Amino acid sequence: MSKTMKALQFNRPTKTLKLKEIPIPKVEKGDDVLVKVVYCGICGTDLHAIKANYPTAEHDVTLGHEICGVVSEIGADVKTLKVGDKVTVDPYRGCYKCRYCAGGNPQYCLHEGPKNALGFFRDGGWAEYCLAPAQQVHVVPESMGLGLDLACLVETLSTIQHGVDRIGMVPHDANVLIIGAGIIGILYACIFHLHGHKNVIISEPSNERRARIDVLELGYKAMAPDQTREMMAKAAENLDAYGLDYVVDCSGYAPAVEEAFQWLRKGGRLCIFGVAPPTARISIAPNQMFHKELMILGTLTNPFCYPKATALTAAMGARYLAYDKLAIQTFDLKDYEKALSSLASGVISKAVFKFSE
Amino acid sequence: MSKTMKALQFNRPTKTLKLKEIPIPKVEKGDDVLVKVVYCGICGTDLHAIKANYPTAEHDVTLGHEICGVVSEIGADVKTLKVGDKVTVDPYRGCYKCRYCAGGNPQYCLHEGPKNALGFFRDGGWAEYCLAPAQQVHVVPESMGLGLDLACLVETLSTIQHGVDRIGMVPHDANVLIIGAGIIGILYACIFHLHGHKNVIISEPSNERRARIDVLELGYKAMAPDQTREMMAKAAENLDAYGLDYVVDCSGYAPAVEEAFQWLRKGGRLCIFGVAPPTARISIAPNQMFHKELMILGTLTNPFCYPKATALTAAMGARYLAYDKLAIQTFDLKDYEKALSSLASGVISKAVFKFSE
Repeated sequence: MSKTMKALQFNRPTKTLKLKEIPIPKVEKGDDVLVKVVYCGICGTDLHAIKANYPTAEHDVTLGHEICGVVSEIGADVKTLKVGDKVTVDPYRGCYKCRYCAGGNPQYCLHEGPKNALGFFRDGGWAEYCLAPAQQVHVVPESMGLGLDLACLVETLSTIQHGVDRIGMVPHDANVLIIGAGIIGILYACIFHLHGHKNVIISEPSNERRARIDVLELGYKAMAPDQTREMMAKAAENLDAYGLDYVVDCSGYAPAVEEAFQWLRKGGRLCIFGVAPPTARISIAPNQMFHKELMILGTLTNPFCYPKATALTAAMGARYLAYDKLAIQTFDLKDYEKALSSLASGVISKAVFKFSE
Repeated sequence: MSKTMKALQFNRPTKTLKLKEIPIPKVEKGDDVLVKVVYCGICGTDLHAIKANYPTAEHDVTLGHEICGVVSEIGADVKTLKVGDKVTVDPYRGCYKCRYCAGGNPQYCLHEGPKNALGFFRDGGWAEYCLAPAQQVHVVPESMGLGLDLACLVETLSTIQHGVDRIGMVPHDANVLIIGAGIIGILYACIFHLHGHKNVIISEPSNERRARIDVLELGYKAMAPDQTREMMAKAAENLDAYGLDYVVDCSGYAPAVEEAFQWLRKGGRLCIFGVAPPTARISIAPNQMFHKELMILGTLTNPFCYPKATALTAAMGARYLAYDKLAIQTFDLKDYEKALSSLASGVISKAVFKFSE
């Protein structure tokens, strides 16, 4: 095989993104796995990263953390994978030594986690090959019948799966509001639908994004914030009967979160998934927290979620995840500028680089 | 036995509290239980009630919801109790028919709960006898060796037990801050100590209240808010190492809660037990909720907690709960004015009416 490959690398000091021909990484350590990348997504975080608004390495680094492909080569100690396996790659790992990791929370790791993630600090998947430690490489079992196009969504769904784990079991009589119909809000809506929930509404200012909810034919109302406000103002006249049991924020827009907090009925839960700016604040009444026995919880990355998220992705399948339904578009790596601008402009919900298999 | 009894009744329209001689209630329904009251506590809520700042009946009603005593008479259908049993009385019950009750959350009941509680809407325990439905009367098993003086704390501890259930298992390496050293804060501190926790601090402005923590010899630091602030400002330089894992607010003082929220480290939980005024607000950063994966939870009354709280009270025993240690004072019912003023002034942590056995 060729000794070089195409890779899209970011240089933080100069804020430049450049398509380069670089050596294919070599399997050197016993637990190294070389993955031939087949799909690698572009995440909203990547848009921040290439503006240097998100932590990345100071040296040239290949971006891309939504990686899937086929095992090309393995180190001598790798027992759980073999060449030819279809795999996804978890960008994160813990050190498994610090207080947090040793306590089962690698998402808080003092040394690894986002601080040393593939596609941010170590070379990621916007390249023909990606080298990853075996513990970060997860088989997509053949028996699942999950194509690599959909498997490329496992990383995104693993972070949502963690949110689902944090939120806990949602009873089927629950009223749910999802704030924001970006790709995360859409996927949350799909998961509620997959689980049989009927009473879900999605609040989203963009006509285009609301239309993407409609395409999925979930039977859920996608509403403009003014409509949501009007509907919930009526509901607020008798919150016990019509209030919300769950609000999942996928927008990171603090005023919407603060407003929705008022609509929670007794025992309600607010899950904060969207990333608000560091300076944003929401104001809450501790008296309401007490009298309505509310819960607010944040959710961060995807600890121990890859196997579950792989099964979730397979369970969702093309019914929910077909690229056309989700307004996901594939691009050749060389067309990265178009891919990034299409995603940034919102004409698509997600862009994915597709490599020749 | 005499056909009348002494009862301390509140008349809401005139805001008057009056010691009266009224008929002893009669066992009429099949599940009625007549309890000869031995101890009945005075709760901070009662102080609000007699100022008409808390919901109570519009007619004359005997206050007092921290009730324990001995079964004096039972209705024909009562199978779980017998005359002479030592019992506590749960002031709350659900309707077990509404959406919330049927879903296992009687604390949100649309028809009962605080809206029809003993000592607020139905006659309570500031009287020689109290009539209660059998489902609200809980045996104190003889085998527990729990005296009725301590059993009188089961009601208070049942609300704390629910908070403990909501907070979940607290690992032994956790750093805990309790805000407020009123009776609730003191009892939370005792429970953490009972469970073997070492890293607990209590923040409290009153010298007198802090001294009550010291009396208990828990090995915990009771600190004035300025000291807490100073200590946590240092800790905040490296929150990962020194930040708080749990904050339990027992003060209802919103500025203290908002401040402590900043000191939570990754994965931290804030439990809101104290009752803040309805207009009070705390400002939180959703970005911190996300990045530190925090949780905020309110806790309300005591659903399904009486059996657990009875066992908890017995487990705590005189080591923690002896009245002198907790600055609890007993009073004759006729001395109610002194009891109420002593509690209101803070010279004691709690007042309890003691009746002849």
